[in-house]
Amino acid sequence: MKPITLKDIALELNISVTTASKALQGRSDVSNATREAVIKLAEKLNYVPNSVAVNLRTRQTKTIGVIIPTIVHQFFSKVIDGIIEEAEKQGYFVITLQSNENFEFEKKQLQLLMQKRVDGILISLSNQTQQCKHLNEILQKNIPIVIFDKINKLVNCSKVSIDDQMAAYNSVSYLIKKGYKRIAHFRGSLMPQNSIDRFLGYKKALIDHGIEFDSSLVYLCDNNDDFNDGYINAQKLLKDQNNVDAIFAITDLIAVGILKCFNENGVKIPEDIAVFGFSDWFMSSVVTPTLSSVVQPGFEMGRKSTEILIEEIKNLNTNTPYAFQNIVLPTSLVIREST
Amino acid sequence: MKPITLKDIALELNISVTTASKALQGRSDVSNATREAVIKLAEKLNYVPNSVAVNLRTRQTKTIGVIIPTIVHQFFSKVIDGIIEEAEKQGYFVITLQSNENFEFEKKQLQLLMQKRVDGILISLSNQTQQCKHLNEILQKNIPIVIFDKINKLVNCSKVSIDDQMAAYNSVSYLIKKGYKRIAHFRGSLMPQNSIDRFLGYKKALIDHGIEFDSSLVYLCDNNDDFNDGYINAQKLLKDQNNVDAIFAITDLIAVGILKCFNENGVKIPEDIAVFGFSDWFMSSVVTPTLSSVVQPGFEMGRKSTEILIEEIKNLNTNTPYAFQNIVLPTSLVIREST
Repeated sequence: MKPITLKDIALELNISVTTASKALQGRSDVSNATREAVIKLAEKLNYVPNSVAVNLRTRQTKTIGVIIPTIVHQFFSKVIDGIIEEAEKQGYFVITLQSNENFEFEKKQLQLLMQKRVDGILISLSNQTQQCKHLNEILQKNIPIVIFDKINKLVNCSKVSIDDQMAAYNSVSYLIKKGYKRIAHFRGSLMPQNSIDRFLGYKKALIDHGIEFDSSLVYLCDNNDDFNDGYINAQKLLKDQNNVDAIFAITDLIAVGILKCFNENGVKIPEDIAVFGFSDWFMSSVVTPTLSSVVQPGFEMGRKSTEILIEEIKNLNTNTPYAFQNIVLPTSLVIREST
Repeated sequence: MKPITLKDIALELNISVTTASKALQGRSDVSNATREAVIKLAEKLNYVPNSVAVNLRTRQTKTIGVIIPTIVHQFFSKVIDGIIEEAEKQGYFVITLQSNENFEFEKKQLQLLMQKRVDGILISLSNQTQQCKHLNEILQKNIPIVIFDKINKLVNCSKVSIDDQMAAYNSVSYLIKKGYKRIAHFRGSLMPQNSIDRFLGYKKALIDHGIEFDSSLVYLCDNNDDFNDGYINAQKLLKDQNNVDAIFAITDLIAVGILKCFNENGVKIPEDIAVFGFSDWFMSSVVTPTLSSVVQPGFEMGRKSTEILIEEIKNLNTNTPYAFQNIVLPTSLVIREST
């Protein structure tokens, strides 16, 4: 069964498609009798307006595309939650794609979204993404892009992020004020900006508090979100016997890997070594000991990015000039048993 | 800047739109010279085919809609991961909406997807959804629907689920074989089928092993996925002093709430009371003690549902008759410290 169209309704009532359309829009240049007849028949036939046809007329799809590294991830699922809520409020649909932290895949996904004629794109860059030609090409076509969380400062578009450096600085400063002196950092992979910024925040906090930076206390985790990377590096740290009394970890998943290793090896947390995470995943409030962490506003990041994107889409459609926004959302620390 | 259209290319080369279109499709009824000129210009202008226009011609949008209760949920995010992967492989886009476990909202989301003219719909029902008129109306319009995970047996369409009753039966039977005799059940809300089935599996396992069912050992959690519901009911259970030696919980989140309460109150797990969860979330492998659970194949459930849906869409388009499928995916138990 083909879907009921406006034409079917017009034919049945022996009126023009234009009249049927006007009647459904409640326009006054249609008689009451006709209007009522059209509405009654539309209800009876369960008529649904074809948004594809409407979109072709207006050159809008009322759809925005989202590319995230991965969806099985508490932070990104919260972001998507915020995106969907804001988009819905404004009558937009959301198509979600994943880059799997792979640059080539990210480019492919962008092309797919362009084919789908989305009105705008939200993206959090993959860890592999260094240059941004693929984004600039789309921006040149006047398709708005908002980059969130994992941003690249060199792309000329709106951005929504947190101040990773400041959040790391605050976490490490907290540890120093609690009396910890030899603080290790389990850093993330070398490329993404948030990995770099959290490392710089760690380093700056040490220096500002008169503690010498010691590169031998920086452990490299290849995957920021791999529990096992935390576990394995914690084993290394114990072998190194470098008198570390606290660790600032790039993510909660890395931190929870550290907790597991320490629990298994009888290292008391925080008495022997304190552990600080980043992102405040739910699990961090239920592990033993519960984990101190940085609260990252995922839902709000998704909501705000979408608000800005739709604003830009509307401005473009009405030829209203606008400036790109650079929003930095506030973070806070949640202190628990691990420190 | 408006996107480049086929018309722009045709104008520039002084050929018809039809010829330009044929050239891009590589058809042989266009001269080599023209074909090459069109392809070269299309590349130069960065032309992207407008899938909206293509869709209007074919009456297909190559888009499927998904409605899940919530995305900030490890199981459902894994399902979405499987859906996106399979859809992409077959050239379909995925629009994701959330029902927030609310029936009225679920109906509204279905209407939105219909307006968007999606080719098919994947849905996991909200806990409130009892009758399925809203689904039957869509099926009558020949839009395929596949229901997954939280299904309703009365809807005449394909379904992908696990055997919740069997999985619960296996978990409780395992506890009984380990020597536990007074096994409580922290059940979920009354409505959804999976909540009912897990309760029935629990009851059947007791009876089959000659243990009398005692309704006073069944604790009702209003929200299947609320950690606090597990925590509060565990407090109640301790007050009840009913000599329970094991608990089978409807979900891992409920079970982790129990662990927290027991850890705080010095109840030894599993020596005093063993705890068994359901769904095997990542956190269950890192809490103390680690939690035994039922492994639920989220990714495969999403993948399989999508495969069936696209098969049905294709069959409909070619008027090929097909039968609805009822897939029950296998589960397994993962045994950890808590039992």
